[in-house]
Amino acid sequence: MDLPEVVCWERVALAAHGVLGTRHPDRGVDLVPVVFAVDGHQVIIPVDTVKPKRTLRLQRLENLMSDPRCSLLVEHFDEDWSRLWWVRLSGRGAERPPSPTHLTRLAEQHTQYAQAGAVASTIVFTADAVTGWAASVA
Amino acid sequence: MDLPEVVCWERVALAAHGVLGTRHPDRGVDLVPVVFAVDGHQVIIPVDTVKPKRTLRLQRLENLMSDPRCSLLVEHFDEDWSRLWWVRLSGRGAERPPSPTHLTRLAEQHTQYAQAGAVASTIVFTADAVTGWAASVA
Repeated sequence: MDLPEVVCWERVALAAHGVLGTRHPDRGVDLVPVVFAVDGHQVIIPVDTVKPKRTLRLQRLENLMSDPRCSLLVEHFDEDWSRLWWVRLSGRGAERPPSPTHLTRLAEQHTQYAQAGAVASTIVFTADAVTGWAASVA
Repeated sequence: MDLPEVVCWERVALAAHGVLGTRHPDRGVDLVPVVFAVDGHQVIIPVDTVKPKRTLRLQRLENLMSDPRCSLLVEHFDEDWSRLWWVRLSGRGAERPPSPTHLTRLAEQHTQYAQAGAVASTIVFTADAVTGWAASVA
């Protein structure tokens, strides 16, 4: 069954974790797990200094600079397939310096971001379309 | 830390569930949760008749016909970020009629596919590149 848009947004906000897909010019598509916070109909994805990484010049940022179209999938997997559900957001993403509001939202959602300097930058994802599906009514 | 390729494949085979990303001409990227079975360095993704869907002419199949490049992400999320890990496969996917070997592999992996007619078609995903990351050694 399709999920109403308001339910989709509730589930996305609660999950605060999903998979971001961007377009890579050679490989076609890049996928990366992300955590995030929701602010209205925008999703704030941090470029953080908490999880170990080689560089803060992430490929996802390069990809979005050459093509801002991207997608975010939030899903629940279960061995019992009657409990599956997912929500997909399609839209555009752009790197933005972290605003005070977004830093607060991120720290509320993920305690790891409460420390100063934990978020170096952000991707602000603006959704154009929201689709959701559940195998059965919860 | 980067995961060795052999460890990546072990984790993908064990997970048997991930997110498939394909290129959509307008939206840019489409993401969809998938279950699968591994056969060598190929990943067999069923087009099944088990999970409710509107049609078997799935958008992911249309996308792969116009551009076979795609990516599969398998990940473990945890509130304790020292336990995060993910594996990403980049490669090419094509729709293929289900072979007896692939039907057997799928049914071994997912009991839901043991019944006749459960798998209408498959996407055979051939990986060109494998990347894996873990926050810490398990």
